[in-house]
Amino acid sequence: MANDCLFCKIISNEIPSSKIYEDSQVLVFLDINPVNFGHCLIVPKKHSETLLDCDEKELFELIRISKKVALALKTSLNCDGINLIQNNFKASGQVIFHTHFHLIPRFENDGFRLLPRTKQYSGCEKDAFAEKIKSFLK
Amino acid sequence: MANDCLFCKIISNEIPSSKIYEDSQVLVFLDINPVNFGHCLIVPKKHSETLLDCDEKELFELIRISKKVALALKTSLNCDGINLIQNNFKASGQVIFHTHFHLIPRFENDGFRLLPRTKQYSGCEKDAFAEKIKSFLK
Repeated sequence: MANDCLFCKIISNEIPSSKIYEDSQVLVFLDINPVNFGHCLIVPKKHSETLLDCDEKELFELIRISKKVALALKTSLNCDGINLIQNNFKASGQVIFHTHFHLIPRFENDGFRLLPRTKQYSGCEKDAFAEKIKSFLK
Repeated sequence: MANDCLFCKIISNEIPSSKIYEDSQVLVFLDINPVNFGHCLIVPKKHSETLLDCDEKELFELIRISKKVALALKTSLNCDGINLIQNNFKASGQVIFHTHFHLIPRFENDGFRLLPRTKQYSGCEKDAFAEKIKSFLK
């Protein structure tokens, strides 16, 4: 665990999140500033900053769980497409320096080129999305 | 191999490419319409359309090789950042329906939000980039 790392604090439950999936190595939760509703973050529990310093074993788990979550997004939200995005270092757009994969549900004509953050969950909508997606996760 | 799949034709050498890496399961080559020079595509040799129908074993190889190529991009191009992007289905921006990971070298103030295709390699510049990156790959 790294001091002052937002995702480490989410992993340790110091900061709450809308969790989609959790095991001993990986946590999946909703991005609070989604591109589209259902935008998930797949995060290794062990702290690393980027793809470049993340252990191979953890990367295998991240991509394995990403596929599972992508299938769950497709079936639960009936989305038309999904982007997997993983940014490394500030110049790439990385904001939280704890390795993470974005999974972004996409819809025909949603108008995004990629990654503008225009939507906000209202009230308990976020938890409802989390529950819905989680219920489709196998 | 799928008929009329551009990447299957690149894998079988029917269509030439600037290769960065090749083994029995994975091929890495330069995108011909790069976001920045050095933009790589990491592709499984066995045809699948998206992350969702790609075998776990192949995904492990794709992410393992992606990390290696990312390290090579960082050291060979001295880039400031790297995006890993993987698009699924037309609505996400996927154009070639053969699973692939983009690895995009990024530079401070390169001005991209993400993925506009504005650059063209001139002459043998593309092969020179391929050689340079390949030479840093361990």
